[in-house]
Amino acid sequence: MREGVLLTGATGFVGRAVLAELVARGIPVHATARRPGPVLPGVIWHAADLCEPSARARLIAAAPAARLIHCAWEIEHGQFWTSPANEVWRAVSRDLVAGFLEAGGQRVLALGTCAEYDPLAPSALAEARLVAPITPYGQAKALLQADLAQICGPVLIWARLFHLYGPGEDRRRFVPSLIDALVEGRPAEVRAADLLRDFASSAHVARALVSLIEAGTVGAFDIGSGQSRSLGTLARIIAETAGRPELLRLSHAPGPQDPAELTPNFSALAAAIGLTAEHPEQALTEHVRREIGAA
Amino acid sequence: MREGVLLTGATGFVGRAVLAELVARGIPVHATARRPGPVLPGVIWHAADLCEPSARARLIAAAPAARLIHCAWEIEHGQFWTSPANEVWRAVSRDLVAGFLEAGGQRVLALGTCAEYDPLAPSALAEARLVAPITPYGQAKALLQADLAQICGPVLIWARLFHLYGPGEDRRRFVPSLIDALVEGRPAEVRAADLLRDFASSAHVARALVSLIEAGTVGAFDIGSGQSRSLGTLARIIAETAGRPELLRLSHAPGPQDPAELTPNFSALAAAIGLTAEHPEQALTEHVRREIGAA
Repeated sequence: MREGVLLTGATGFVGRAVLAELVARGIPVHATARRPGPVLPGVIWHAADLCEPSARARLIAAAPAARLIHCAWEIEHGQFWTSPANEVWRAVSRDLVAGFLEAGGQRVLALGTCAEYDPLAPSALAEARLVAPITPYGQAKALLQADLAQICGPVLIWARLFHLYGPGEDRRRFVPSLIDALVEGRPAEVRAADLLRDFASSAHVARALVSLIEAGTVGAFDIGSGQSRSLGTLARIIAETAGRPELLRLSHAPGPQDPAELTPNFSALAAAIGLTAEHPEQALTEHVRREIGAA
Repeated sequence: MREGVLLTGATGFVGRAVLAELVARGIPVHATARRPGPVLPGVIWHAADLCEPSARARLIAAAPAARLIHCAWEIEHGQFWTSPANEVWRAVSRDLVAGFLEAGGQRVLALGTCAEYDPLAPSALAEARLVAPITPYGQAKALLQADLAQICGPVLIWARLFHLYGPGEDRRRFVPSLIDALVEGRPAEVRAADLLRDFASSAHVARALVSLIEAGTVGAFDIGSGQSRSLGTLARIIAETAGRPELLRLSHAPGPQDPAELTPNFSALAAAIGLTAEHPEQALTEHVRREIGAA
């Protein structure tokens, strides 16, 4: 009897939040990463390099889970947009999912990205976006969606992540880089302050992903907080929570490829699992307070 | 000064409805088909076989329109799902659209299909469908969407048509085949009466397409009536309007590839152009009355 979830990338930024959510719900987990992570109730660790075919086969045999949440991918900050590793991870993902289903796995959730969409469409509704990736990362993910739809048939959830923040993320990303500047008393610069973005906490995203796979729904979903704000507003929340609003330096000189607005279609997610929006004023404030040791 | 619309497939089932809508709105039209169609105010006809590269080039030079509505495709009843012509029309469409934009065209609307989606997803919300075509027709259209997104950038509207009926359609299709049986006093059989479908009139679809391209919105839209009914209910409306309900024979033995429900995501269309739903009880009744000569 197969039960529980096989979680890949379980020590990564998204994977660790998903792992915490699965543990909180009492769902048995086979967790995999290159090195085992923390001991947690109901979690069996399998150390594996998924890029090795034999390691994938061993993992599938050793982890008789009913559902797969596939978070593993190479996401090296500043590199991953154009890295040839994207094509490697597309092939790895395809093979892993096919092997999981052949062994008797029943449902698959894999991570997509907002970078699958046409970033230059100036006025496309969130409900009306074209899949038209312009980066190798977005292209590999979009092609993987098509691959997995063929392989999985009607048991696939494709979860397109938008912007995130949370514990353990790379310090060069938007939220931690601002927190670090403010804590160290340096000017906190935002050079495209008017861009509208939907930043969700990794905990909120993990709730959405686990709810989707547990609900038995299938299809493609945008994942987000449901509340977009300008980067300037988000930076102001961070700076005020950190008590250093005078260090904020807002300007607006976006790059040519930066869409003015990039927000998920939250209505599909809300309709499927009844998720309510996460308000950045509250969620981001709590995160910053924890990060600076004030909570 | 480029103005008006270049309409391809202008004598076809969808094209003729779009042509009527453009004329009704007073929009100048360069209409193209293998043979010229009816003389209409503001319409210039260009006879052309779009499969001929030189004919495409001549058409683009002779029709300096600002916008392109590309309806032409090979849709031979019973053949088109698997016809090799789908790949020909993909290449023709790509080349035509590229030439139109190179010559100074400004916006493009091209027709997609519900067959681009995964037909087997049992419970996918309309907002959450995977693009996962299983037929050569659906595959060619899905690949064309990706082609055109690259070629057009942010000036593409991709309009996925669902089920339609209207004047001039092939008599073997769902609505006319029932009308003909009822008028001739033969039993009218529906063998998958419980399937939920969204049947829109071609006039309603034409209003949606012209509104989308005139609104300046871009992106991918499902096109439909906004009101789905079972095939049995639709057949009952037709039979009662024709005055022969006793000829109706409803059973339910769907094929393995027939999704129980296939409905467009109407909310994207409603949000983009404020289109209201078309109620089948009224629109289908009017169509049947015209077809049987009662109106």
